[in-house]
Amino acid sequence: MTRTDDSVDEAVLARIHQLYGRQSHLIDGGAAREWAETFTPDGEFCSPSYPAPVAGTDALEDFAERFYAAAQDAGEVHRHVVTNLAVYRLDRDTLRVQAYLQIVATARGGESRLVRFTTIDDRLVHIDGEWRIARRVVSRDDR
Amino acid sequence: MTRTDDSVDEAVLARIHQLYGRQSHLIDGGAAREWAETFTPDGEFCSPSYPAPVAGTDALEDFAERFYAAAQDAGEVHRHVVTNLAVYRLDRDTLRVQAYLQIVATARGGESRLVRFTTIDDRLVHIDGEWRIARRVVSRDDR
Amino acid sequence: MTRTDDSVDEAVLARIHQLYGRQSHLIDGGAAREWAETFTPDGEFCSPSYPAPVAGTDALEDFAERFYAAAQDAGEVHRHVVTNLAVYRLDRDTLRVQAYLQIVATARGGESRLVRFTTIDDRLVHIDGEWRIARRVVSRDDR
Repeated sequence: MTRTDDSVDEAVLARIHQLYGRQSHLIDGGAAREWAETFTPDGEFCSPSYPAPVAGTDALEDFAERFYAAAQDAGEVHRHVVTNLAVYRLDRDTLRVQAYLQIVATARGGESRLVRFTTIDDRLVHIDGEWRIARRVVSRDDR
Repeated sequence: MTRTDDSVDEAVLARIHQLYGRQSHLIDGGAAREWAETFTPDGEFCSPSYPAPVAGTDALEDFAERFYAAAQDAGEVHRHVVTNLAVYRLDRDTLRVQAYLQIVATARGGESRLVRFTTIDDRLVHIDGEWRIARRVVSRDDR
Repeated sequence: MTRTDDSVDEAVLARIHQLYGRQSHLIDGGAAREWAETFTPDGEFCSPSYPAPVAGTDALEDFAERFYAAAQDAGEVHRHVVTNLAVYRLDRDTLRVQAYLQIVATARGGESRLVRFTTIDDRLVHIDGEWRIARRVVSRDDR
């Protein structure tokens, strides 16, 4: 595992912390299009929880809408809790970001429970003045 | 939902991460006055877990003391776990901060449990050279 | 409790967030030597979960290897979830860092559970151009 390179300076790290902090609020709050736009136009989302990778803004938006609708249909609120961000520079315009991601569900009038523990391993690129996710790979601890 | 504005630069973001990191240690450790002083002198705390909003440093201090005493009376330690900070600039001296806030309780000699999952939506103002919370609105996922 | 000093500027805070974000991935992923090297060469790890303090890079590496092997033997993945970092400057080359640390375990094919809630209180020193942990004290909420 590479070190978190000192060339990931505080200005870059601030943008990444903002991106990851905000991203969960988007999908969990039903802002599907804005969530999709945290990826590049051809960005890929690969998770063992779903049958096939999802790629491209429109498909990512659909995916986020279905995630949100499924929680609502279940009478629950689902949250993506992101912790332990570690940011590595691959080259000038490319970063690798690792993080822990816990899915927590709460039933209306009920208890909150940890649904699953996953890790994410992302490749980010710098386009149009901002960092976006080109590829996300999710791994589940129960697999 | 607004974007996390790039005008929230790394210097401001550092202060906000420090404020939110530290704030939980204060209330969870019984430093009620210091917790109250992370709010403005007339700061407001609005939460559906309590009958009425709490406003002003003295009332906030009382609130924090009661929170800590209630946990102790129950033979438990209660923690405010803050994640997913997203910081937005409203104007030069005003920020909006969203975050996830989980309350976790641990009984002496017992297990830890997630008591509830909440979100916070705060308005911060810059006074006397530091950022303080002017108004916090807590929402519960189970409501 | 001291305030998070403004002299912990954004450049220092970025390094500390990177260190703590990355450190959990190391021990949880079996990179025992790299985890040990986040401490100073004579760094100390003091936790009530283990019979005696662990000191020095080799002993810390052994400790991390045993942690990882124990989880594997149990057919589980164990994670160190770090939140609520609060960083205080003690002097030019010394920092204090407080954080919440939750241990979450997931059985292969099973559920995830919060094993214990702990707090960490670290002293860091700046050597060879980077911040390392000179002494970590872990406290358990169930004790």
